[in-house]
Amino acid sequence: MREFIPQERLLLGAGPSNANPRVLRAMTQPLLGYLDSDFLQLLDDVRAMLKSLFHTHSDLTLAVSGTGTSGMEASLCNILEPGDLAIVAVNGFFGLRMTDIASRCGATVVQINTEWGRPVDPEAIKQELAKHRRVKAVALVHGETSTGVLTPLEEIADLAHSYDATYIVDAVTSLGGVDIAVDDWGVDVCYSGTQKCLGCPPGLSPITFGDRALQIINTRQTKPHSFYLDMALLGAYWASTTTRRAYHHTAPTSMLYGLREGLRIIFEEGPEQRVRRHQASAQSLRSGLEALGLKLFAENGYRLDSLTAVYIPDSIEDEPVRRALVKDYNIEIGGGLGELRGKIWRIGLMGENATHGNVLFLLSALEQVLNRFGSHLSLGNGVAAAERALVAYQASIA
Amino acid sequence: MREFIPQERLLLGAGPSNANPRVLRAMTQPLLGYLDSDFLQLLDDVRAMLKSLFHTHSDLTLAVSGTGTSGMEASLCNILEPGDLAIVAVNGFFGLRMTDIASRCGATVVQINTEWGRPVDPEAIKQELAKHRRVKAVALVHGETSTGVLTPLEEIADLAHSYDATYIVDAVTSLGGVDIAVDDWGVDVCYSGTQKCLGCPPGLSPITFGDRALQIINTRQTKPHSFYLDMALLGAYWASTTTRRAYHHTAPTSMLYGLREGLRIIFEEGPEQRVRRHQASAQSLRSGLEALGLKLFAENGYRLDSLTAVYIPDSIEDEPVRRALVKDYNIEIGGGLGELRGKIWRIGLMGENATHGNVLFLLSALEQVLNRFGSHLSLGNGVAAAERALVAYQASIA
Repeated sequence: MREFIPQERLLLGAGPSNANPRVLRAMTQPLLGYLDSDFLQLLDDVRAMLKSLFHTHSDLTLAVSGTGTSGMEASLCNILEPGDLAIVAVNGFFGLRMTDIASRCGATVVQINTEWGRPVDPEAIKQELAKHRRVKAVALVHGETSTGVLTPLEEIADLAHSYDATYIVDAVTSLGGVDIAVDDWGVDVCYSGTQKCLGCPPGLSPITFGDRALQIINTRQTKPHSFYLDMALLGAYWASTTTRRAYHHTAPTSMLYGLREGLRIIFEEGPEQRVRRHQASAQSLRSGLEALGLKLFAENGYRLDSLTAVYIPDSIEDEPVRRALVKDYNIEIGGGLGELRGKIWRIGLMGENATHGNVLFLLSALEQVLNRFGSHLSLGNGVAAAERALVAYQASIA
Repeated sequence: MREFIPQERLLLGAGPSNANPRVLRAMTQPLLGYLDSDFLQLLDDVRAMLKSLFHTHSDLTLAVSGTGTSGMEASLCNILEPGDLAIVAVNGFFGLRMTDIASRCGATVVQINTEWGRPVDPEAIKQELAKHRRVKAVALVHGETSTGVLTPLEEIADLAHSYDATYIVDAVTSLGGVDIAVDDWGVDVCYSGTQKCLGCPPGLSPITFGDRALQIINTRQTKPHSFYLDMALLGAYWASTTTRRAYHHTAPTSMLYGLREGLRIIFEEGPEQRVRRHQASAQSLRSGLEALGLKLFAENGYRLDSLTAVYIPDSIEDEPVRRALVKDYNIEIGGGLGELRGKIWRIGLMGENATHGNVLFLLSALEQVLNRFGSHLSLGNGVAAAERALVAYQASIA
């Protein structure tokens, strides 16, 4: 079997996004034991930077040794016990996944459905909360990767807390690219993934549990179903500062080297500056796509900067276009998930990739390919609109 | 915050072991999407090599996106349902962990205890099996990382199957360094970790489910507690050859690049040759340690080649010796886990590190350090004995 040498692709799909080369290089550093004092220092560094990025004071902030889905499972299975009632607001594929996982925890799940493409409606949450004697958790997705919708978090936090429910938020596609302030906004549990706006490969899930969540963990009647994702045990390894670190599992050394470097890069740029970069590139992309005559999927005012969903035009087939972008331009964009398969494309501008240059390259390539498949676009229209949008954005923040 | 530049350590503890530099370099290859055809080919390559290494024909062979402990959890939670009865044979720390995880699955767990340092006794399993109307699974650890004991697998397989129980085996510290033949030996579920004898960083868990296990998965009454580790869903992504691959979670790209390269290195060397290399270095290490007057922990005849446990001599303290080995020689060895803390050291010769040269280096360093802390060893005794043992081993296989 020969060496595996993949092509260099521009990953503008729903993730993974391209990792910063410095991150990949950091992953080649020599391995250390999981109780080596240098390695424990690295865990402390990672935790400190994650706390700062999540905007939380909680020491129970760490990276779970699995992808974003493992973070979703860790969030739900540490809060929910069999018989608990959970409200899950679903406005896309990953909300549905939350209901599946919450059910596997033995919880009774009330699913509040919002049309895909729209944000979660606080009023619907409020009405549902009022129906029950005790709601253990309210869970939703901040930036729905399946639809490109961003749901505002604060109002729902207040509602959940007024009913003494724990607020669980999926920030897989938002952390590092979109503003989030866990403590100020009242989010009790929040998790993300490394392969989207953090500029690292997939494989780790940054997570944080605040005071309200910690109290629930400390007073559970049963152990969480998952040993691997048991936050009390993970905390005893990661977060112990006064006592001996307790072995739980062998930490994924190289991935954590990469995450530390990825976070270091984020703080070199500045998280606020990074959010503005994601805003600028998203605005220029959206303007360019609309100038090409394409229709954006997510409701105006609730569009996620890190991921833009766009309707596939009538008379154009999904897969041939995506295959041509890969084959001729080495650009990957994403197809639709679940019920949106064949109906939308998903274009990610995440982490390293959220640049105006990438927007121009993608728009140019997409124009060419769509023309080839029968659209009659004026070449350059998208690029010109993207340029204008960038100038307008820069003026707006100046 | 500065760049993290760890020292180059020789990791002769219980894992992680040092990774092959080719593996680390492979991890710097550019990322690909999880449905990219080149990446799907990589998954097929990994699966083919894992099947060959496990000696199984089962297509439900893949790498779980977590460390060895996630493989343990995947094995148990896909087989066990609430109310099932499981027999777990415990002869060390990781057997205990199996009972914890099996209990979290809702199973009733009968724990058969064997003194730590001895292999599991088939007679005890047989007697326990005879007591119950229906036993769903028999689970044990092949090579106990906490004690350095290797339990023979075949006789217990026959016993389990004669009672229609599924046989689950932990091969975290054996696969790639010690003989294992999943199909021939009647193992139904087997998992490992990448950071021991496979020469990769920690973070993935190779796993295989045979026909008997697959039938149980296909006829479960309830979903597994874990969505992340649900083998039916993982199989639909990894193992689908005829139908479209179904997205489950974003595969940890870089780790899988590394695993493919690690497996490629194993097949370049040849798995049998690799097992002999582990045997040779273990024999020379054991002879050297005994020549230093140290006492081996595991029962003779059942010693694990990849990990040797040795009693800490009277009058010698555990941690100062290990700290000196790190500080002065950059060698890490492991301390005892659980009830063996402060009583034994654990010396791993795994994957890349299973070399005679490493044995000589460690023995020399250990002699120096033990002398410094008050032992009166004749310098060179250990090394000379290790040399003689190597010559004897080579003659025995010639």
